[in-house]
Amino acid sequence: MRQFVLIGHDVPTEPDFSLDDLAGGAGRLDALCRSITAAFVTSHGIREDVRVHLIARDELTITFDGGTLQRLNPDERSTASLVRKALEHREDAIGALPAEPSPGSEVYRRGFEGTLEEIADDGPIVQLHEGGEAVSDVGAETLGDAIFVLSDHRDFTDEEGRLLEAFADQRLRLGPELLHADQAITIAHHYLDTGGYERF
Amino acid sequence: MRQFVLIGHDVPTEPDFSLDDLAGGAGRLDALCRSITAAFVTSHGIREDVRVHLIARDELTITFDGGTLQRLNPDERSTASLVRKALEHREDAIGALPAEPSPGSEVYRRGFEGTLEEIADDGPIVQLHEGGEAVSDVGAETLGDAIFVLSDHRDFTDEEGRLLEAFADQRLRLGPELLHADQAITIAHHYLDTGGYERF
Repeated sequence: MRQFVLIGHDVPTEPDFSLDDLAGGAGRLDALCRSITAAFVTSHGIREDVRVHLIARDELTITFDGGTLQRLNPDERSTASLVRKALEHREDAIGALPAEPSPGSEVYRRGFEGTLEEIADDGPIVQLHEGGEAVSDVGAETLGDAIFVLSDHRDFTDEEGRLLEAFADQRLRLGPELLHADQAITIAHHYLDTGGYERF
Repeated sequence: MRQFVLIGHDVPTEPDFSLDDLAGGAGRLDALCRSITAAFVTSHGIREDVRVHLIARDELTITFDGGTLQRLNPDERSTASLVRKALEHREDAIGALPAEPSPGSEVYRRGFEGTLEEIADDGPIVQLHEGGEAVSDVGAETLGDAIFVLSDHRDFTDEEGRLLEAFADQRLRLGPELLHADQAITIAHHYLDTGGYERF
């Protein structure tokens, strides 16, 4: 299973935002929605063996599971609608128990550290970073169950950097161009889909 | 220069569509907008050495030029707004002369064939196709000025296929997964940015 942890520094934690102004009024939720869809969608469906954890302001985590996820379309607006629906159910998340607002989505009352602790045993934690090792030097076979951690339009905070130093197994860069998170996710999938640029 | 020709079979040719319903009411303009932004945006700006030609129902061609393009943001809505603005000026395109609705965008009264004829000398025309040769077998150096042709959510029509047989220099596939056009564009850039998976 491939997992992606998306840090949303400014993303809403309440559902009172408009789907008509995602880039302006909803903390750049547009960008995070593009990352969610990039993680899941292919031309003919959903990648079932993928999980995405959207960290909302280090306060809530919305987890989407490709194995059971429904109503995820490729456009930003319908993905934002899934996020909004999850936030509408945030009060149902109690302690370690998640709310389950719709098939394949869960809302947890935990932030970045709690989420890392929860999933750290699933596979190597990989920070995508321009100063990291080239992905092509690593080999796809070690990354089959990788957990990729990406920030939104802001850099990782000092505290997030500290946690990543403690948790991350690798820092990798995907190429010479600095890209948006959704593009990086597409390229990470491409690297793994092709078995490290070997199978086309 | 890298160029991308995007065929929009159902996309509006009039500007009377709502930015609030791109996936439903505007002929899947959402998907084409994602392709336009994937062609241009990186984390820190716009790829200046890129041109995108959006073919609207084989009737109009809207050409965006990264060298002069302004107000292109990564979100679907603002890109759709650029397309709508271009369509508002469609009547100013007369014969072979384009309308110039905003910096870096032009509207031509020509369809797929006319656009292929116009740009065919700029570089090799590449059809992205699941049955094509693996991009990794081709070599990035031959694709520096490539013109990639992609369809939207529909397959190429028979007539488009006939034109591609006449014009296209290569049919390439980018990997084992069938992806959306915007994802394919991101991977095509990745292949060329890394010089054929060589430079990271």
